[in-house]
Amino acid sequence: MTPDAFLADLDQLSEFGATAPAGAAVRGVDRQAATPEHAAARRWVADGLAGNGFGVEPDRIGNLFASIEWLPGAPALVLGSHLDSQPAAGRLDGAYGVLAAAHAATRLAAEVAAGELTPVRNLAVVDWFNEEGARFTPSLLGSSTYTGALALTDALAIEDLAGVSVADALRGIGCLGSGGGPVADRYLELHIEQGRELENAGVEIGVVTRNWAVAKFTVVVHGDQAHTGATALADRHDALVGAARLVLTLRELAAEAPPGQLLASVGRLRVFPNSPVVVPARVEFEADIRGPETEQVSRALREFDTAMADLTEVTAERARVKVRPPRELWPDGVALAEKAAAEVGARSLRLATRAGHDAIALSARVPTVLIFVPSRDGISHNVAEDTDPDHLLAGVEVLTATARRLLRGEPGGDDE
Amino acid sequence: MTPDAFLADLDQLSEFGATAPAGAAVRGVDRQAATPEHAAARRWVADGLAGNGFGVEPDRIGNLFASIEWLPGAPALVLGSHLDSQPAAGRLDGAYGVLAAAHAATRLAAEVAAGELTPVRNLAVVDWFNEEGARFTPSLLGSSTYTGALALTDALAIEDLAGVSVADALRGIGCLGSGGGPVADRYLELHIEQGRELENAGVEIGVVTRNWAVAKFTVVVHGDQAHTGATALADRHDALVGAARLVLTLRELAAEAPPGQLLASVGRLRVFPNSPVVVPARVEFEADIRGPETEQVSRALREFDTAMADLTEVTAERARVKVRPPRELWPDGVALAEKAAAEVGARSLRLATRAGHDAIALSARVPTVLIFVPSRDGISHNVAEDTDPDHLLAGVEVLTATARRLLRGEPGGDDE
Repeated sequence: MTPDAFLADLDQLSEFGATAPAGAAVRGVDRQAATPEHAAARRWVADGLAGNGFGVEPDRIGNLFASIEWLPGAPALVLGSHLDSQPAAGRLDGAYGVLAAAHAATRLAAEVAAGELTPVRNLAVVDWFNEEGARFTPSLLGSSTYTGALALTDALAIEDLAGVSVADALRGIGCLGSGGGPVADRYLELHIEQGRELENAGVEIGVVTRNWAVAKFTVVVHGDQAHTGATALADRHDALVGAARLVLTLRELAAEAPPGQLLASVGRLRVFPNSPVVVPARVEFEADIRGPETEQVSRALREFDTAMADLTEVTAERARVKVRPPRELWPDGVALAEKAAAEVGARSLRLATRAGHDAIALSARVPTVLIFVPSRDGISHNVAEDTDPDHLLAGVEVLTATARRLLRGEPGGDDE
Repeated sequence: MTPDAFLADLDQLSEFGATAPAGAAVRGVDRQAATPEHAAARRWVADGLAGNGFGVEPDRIGNLFASIEWLPGAPALVLGSHLDSQPAAGRLDGAYGVLAAAHAATRLAAEVAAGELTPVRNLAVVDWFNEEGARFTPSLLGSSTYTGALALTDALAIEDLAGVSVADALRGIGCLGSGGGPVADRYLELHIEQGRELENAGVEIGVVTRNWAVAKFTVVVHGDQAHTGATALADRHDALVGAARLVLTLRELAAEAPPGQLLASVGRLRVFPNSPVVVPARVEFEADIRGPETEQVSRALREFDTAMADLTEVTAERARVKVRPPRELWPDGVALAEKAAAEVGARSLRLATRAGHDAIALSARVPTVLIFVPSRDGISHNVAEDTDPDHLLAGVEVLTATARRLLRGEPGGDDE
């Protein structure tokens, strides 16, 4: 496997759902979960692995595994990320990690076949279903169902905005399996950073030690429908005016916190009935608040609730609150990834992740290692997302070296 | 025609697109332009008029006319309003005026047939197409095309949010005609007030003397898509934060103006890509600013432009600005409607309309009379919209008496 082969495969993978014609200066992807574009990308990666002796099978929540079993019945090192994307997203988020996993796994399987490597566990590559939470809410849907944090029946019943369920969407692309997938006793993921820490430090590898606390929630603002032309200001209950105040409250909470201590945002907002000349009757929006510890997030939520209670002319409520606590990742895994980075000559840095990743879901149940490469200008969830090719290749090398050590049973035997 | 017959017909008409089952405490309608519900309502009204000797024909922009021609080639008094509605709207807005026109026209045609009335012009009832501007933007689409203010080819090409053109939608309900409809030399409309002036004054009839100035426009806020979890505040260009500031700017402009001098609202707002965990890249919204004179509206627009220019982190632009100037309605018509009100024993009040009506579009070309009845609590564009039945019946009586005088050639001959 040459460096050129990896970059060529990455170009090929970026064709599935490409947002601009070939040759355009900036090309992203729109490859939301269980769309034909996502299905085609999965098939292409899986066919490559099947050709190298991996057995391909989706589990009952549509995570697609490609596995190789050297030790019958033994658990597996699982390598992977996600091939689904946000709308108008970059080509690297998730897809880079799945392709790197496929390349690393192929290389390691060849080493085992050649007698150069003696594995203490089996190996699988995975594309976790609906990591982004763009088509189906919540995010990390497939990996959270795999670990049991999300109940299978609940997950299968979740609907997109058009009313299509996860179960029907998976059936539609032939990816609804019946089994639970391989049992992971180690999980390893490579991802782009999506921030600027590595770039600012001039370092090509990040080893993630922990994640930020996150609260995700829906807010419903209740107003009263009226005529924008005929209704006096005193008679209005404008749900959009109330929602606008709350959007700005979240921004102010983040802006007034000490630098780097809080993020707060609204990504989706819908207005009802959303007609010109009609005072909005109802607004629903999805927000997220993030901080290093649960405490910062809880305090911000309390301040947000005060702002909701202080609204005049309309009322508002929070619903579907989901809190992801901060969690320390496997310390021995951090040290192992640093050793692997040094082995291949890459500089590395420890850092926390503010964004969620499948690895964070997995880390609740399985010793997990999460490795980052830099993002140019910290840009992500944007077609302009990019990473220096040398950094992309360094990531694949560190991933492969870390996976090799995990297959061998490092660190300290296979039972910690 | 008994009062009971009118109210029974109004109940019947309210079934088309009813938003709640029969017997519910509050029942509105959802009968957007050229939907099956709108088509069924038109057919029911037209069939009633056809049975009374009126000839029914849509014009080339889907206005549906029911005409009776006593004087071959002579122009007509046109009575009407609109049967389309906003989403989740009241049952009276527009529909009351069309049904009242049908009842008045039937009664007057019987008087002509009986030799009790000698008309100097012909008579037509109309359902103007897409008055609300809910499905297709702009509002007053059919009446503005009839007067020539909107070009026919432009109007037919307008698309709804699903990409269906006016032409295709009209073809779909069999309402795309080829002619221009009857030539109106007088236009008369009865409508609910949608405000509280008549109720506050305890008067059952309003005679409209003029309309407020209105500017309707689209605002596009340009941000940059990013990850809500990973992107530092300093790196954000959040289009929704910018849009929220502008929504509140409009509210503040209205709140800070002298009482009753300015309204400013946002009815429709859309976020792109509108995905959880994605900083919005673009927001588009439709706003309207209204004031008694063009000057108040222009000043507010200038202040809004300053607020757009003052935005940090994102840029914004105004597009598709449409200004409807204030216009004095036909003074002799106002006096005539007052005389008709007195004749049937109704109290009347002169007032201005802040909301747009087909009558305002017509008044640019045709001597026009616009009559209001009260709205309970000023509620409109809401399923709870309502009017006292006595006021509804008084409106029909004043409409009929005014139309009778116009058919006779009042005031002062038929050529002013």
